[in-house]
Amino acid sequence: MKAKNITIIEIIAVGSEFLTPFYQDTNSLYITSKLNELGLNVSYKSIVGDNRKSLLSCFCQALKRADMIFVIGGLGPTSDDVTREVFAEALGKELIFSKDLLNTIQSKFLRRDIPMASSNKKQAYIISGSQIIPNKAGTAPGLWIEDSRKVSVLLPGPPIELKTMFESEVLSRIKKYKTGFIIHKTLRMTGITESKTENLISDLYPKSPEVNLSLLAYPGQIEIHINSHSKTSPAKAAEQINPLLTSLTSRLEKYIFSENEEEMEEVIGKLLVKNKKTLSIAESCTGGLLGHRITNIPGSSRYFLQGVQVYSNQAKTQLLGIDKRVIEKYGAVSSSVARLMAERIRKRSAADYGLAITGIAGPGGGTKEKPVGLVFTALSWDNGIKVDQNQFLGNRSIVKLRATQKAMDMLRRNLLTEKNHSNRRREKIT
Amino acid sequence: MKAKNITIIEIIAVGSEFLTPFYQDTNSLYITSKLNELGLNVSYKSIVGDNRKSLLSCFCQALKRADMIFVIGGLGPTSDDVTREVFAEALGKELIFSKDLLNTIQSKFLRRDIPMASSNKKQAYIISGSQIIPNKAGTAPGLWIEDSRKVSVLLPGPPIELKTMFESEVLSRIKKYKTGFIIHKTLRMTGITESKTENLISDLYPKSPEVNLSLLAYPGQIEIHINSHSKTSPAKAAEQINPLLTSLTSRLEKYIFSENEEEMEEVIGKLLVKNKKTLSIAESCTGGLLGHRITNIPGSSRYFLQGVQVYSNQAKTQLLGIDKRVIEKYGAVSSSVARLMAERIRKRSAADYGLAITGIAGPGGGTKEKPVGLVFTALSWDNGIKVDQNQFLGNRSIVKLRATQKAMDMLRRNLLTEKNHSNRRREKIT
Repeated sequence: MKAKNITIIEIIAVGSEFLTPFYQDTNSLYITSKLNELGLNVSYKSIVGDNRKSLLSCFCQALKRADMIFVIGGLGPTSDDVTREVFAEALGKELIFSKDLLNTIQSKFLRRDIPMASSNKKQAYIISGSQIIPNKAGTAPGLWIEDSRKVSVLLPGPPIELKTMFESEVLSRIKKYKTGFIIHKTLRMTGITESKTENLISDLYPKSPEVNLSLLAYPGQIEIHINSHSKTSPAKAAEQINPLLTSLTSRLEKYIFSENEEEMEEVIGKLLVKNKKTLSIAESCTGGLLGHRITNIPGSSRYFLQGVQVYSNQAKTQLLGIDKRVIEKYGAVSSSVARLMAERIRKRSAADYGLAITGIAGPGGGTKEKPVGLVFTALSWDNGIKVDQNQFLGNRSIVKLRATQKAMDMLRRNLLTEKNHSNRRREKIT
Repeated sequence: MKAKNITIIEIIAVGSEFLTPFYQDTNSLYITSKLNELGLNVSYKSIVGDNRKSLLSCFCQALKRADMIFVIGGLGPTSDDVTREVFAEALGKELIFSKDLLNTIQSKFLRRDIPMASSNKKQAYIISGSQIIPNKAGTAPGLWIEDSRKVSVLLPGPPIELKTMFESEVLSRIKKYKTGFIIHKTLRMTGITESKTENLISDLYPKSPEVNLSLLAYPGQIEIHINSHSKTSPAKAAEQINPLLTSLTSRLEKYIFSENEEEMEEVIGKLLVKNKKTLSIAESCTGGLLGHRITNIPGSSRYFLQGVQVYSNQAKTQLLGIDKRVIEKYGAVSSSVARLMAERIRKRSAADYGLAITGIAGPGGGTKEKPVGLVFTALSWDNGIKVDQNQFLGNRSIVKLRATQKAMDMLRRNLLTEKNHSNRRREKIT
């Protein structure tokens, strides 16, 4: 059959559990990544329960608007598994019994030496005109239904069965619909708002339908996602976005900390290793989040020496030797205390860098002079100190997160300067 | 307006990022849980990109099949935010400019002392006949559109804005559509596996269609969720599950740490406050996660004094005075070092409890004798010490999470015994 032009793809995840607050479909993420590799994009995802009427509504809609449809789940033996019969109804086709398929299913039970439940017989019915997709990891066969206009693929819901079937049987069949190559780039930034980013780049939004740019905002992190599609080659896909990337990075250089989907803690980890520097930290309002993020990176013991969670004033005095009178005079949340925290932890642990955070995470503890969200971040190094006063928006966890992001970004900027210094030195030598 | 009969609810999550392999919509889980509390169930979820044609297809379909529609996202200031205008098109209505709304948005920027970007003006357009839902956590207002047959609600995508708006403005408006009473109970457990739980309770699965039980597994945490629905009263809904709850709690008592959806850190926080006890901690492989979790609880400064992130051996010696020879002899990951960490941090900070964690989070650093996942957790109190050796499964972040859960559970069990003691004493006095 001649390859159709596949432009609209829809994934339908079937299962009443996905309509509760407790479960999320993840199969569609896997299928999406496989399709993206072939230059195919997903236009719609639908989630629907094990209910005939709802399924019929979704299937009819998908058959109307999509060129390729993946239906996941509802192929099992139980009475609420009705995907097969409702999809047949949506297509206006019959279900027919396959003796061969029943034998295949029966032999799977025989091999495992367990009796086949009579309910499994249901899995031997296929949609008229469809091809059976063997299931190597379970009993529910998949179905491939193709006509001159569309392709529909019915797949089992258990992730291991779905992946096995997709990799061994489905990928080879959809390869002919490959539209080319997709390259995905992400720019991660901090220290800038979403609307400021938008204003800085509004004239750069790509006009070509082959290139797509979107902006995402997280606490302390703005991301630019760019997809480039080329019919001919990955090189072409890259070439299409190189001028855009150059413009974006030159305008946003100050804020970009990663062009490779790295977290901030990965970025500073790599820089510390590269520059052969060590780090110790002192946290007050973040209570351990900074250390937690830093030690999420495997191998962080190469540069992370120690931290203190100096939550109480007494701890600030006891663990860092900060004079009680300084705390009384300026308050625990102050530039003076932040500076001392960073300096003392660096010196006491003989680290190259000391990083400190003190602030008011909320919801309580704020005053008119020192409102919730006021956070001082400080970085101390061999011949310098930097203290920033920040006013963060958001609830307790968001303030904690923003504070750690900001502190790590101060370190990152310093490490980059250091790196430039040492690069410059190296350049002189060679 | 008379309350309509709401039977079909659809949630539409807007955002091209949700059609990539990298992002999942989680707002719909939150909305679902809030609707479930009112006895309302979700029938469809749709996920669609920032694309006019696709949005129009989804919106028209939803307006045809659903009685209540929640559209999340695409209300921002950027040029790819087109939810407002496409939803107006689907309804056949006009967008109208609201001077009042523009003033509200402008004043938000004024208060934060930053200039409003011209792109934000777009957010001052509303759909004719709609009501503005104020956004207390951001700039994008929500919209409430109601006619004799349907309700549509347009909500902002950032989770913090969505939740704030939903709780303060939307819930009160949808309460009249309540179909009955749903009681939801959650039993949270630790120290037990999913399959062991399943075996212990398999005969207790409810037979009534009004009661639903499901089992969920997270790292270090197993949850039993029970929903009970009654058309007549909350008392009836509660009555339907009381015998089941009694059986479950008596069989699983040893493992249950919360029957009120509290996190472990909330449970220990309340117990510490109640028993008037203080806590200090020493973390090695968890790097700060324990302190982070403890300080996620507002008011934790009442009981949390200080922590040390003694990542390097030198830090263990310097901050806790643990003899180098002990570390050399037994290793940093050992029962002896864990015990000393807990004892020393308690004594040095004059806390009632000292809690310590040392282990191998992986992926590197494991040996045959001390494999990845080996973690010692220790609790020290006035007249006692307890050290547990654990072998946790999972990757680096899961091992870190399980270790903190286990350490806090040791503290919880001790606090419960303490509580019983003091209760008993009090009973004698009165």
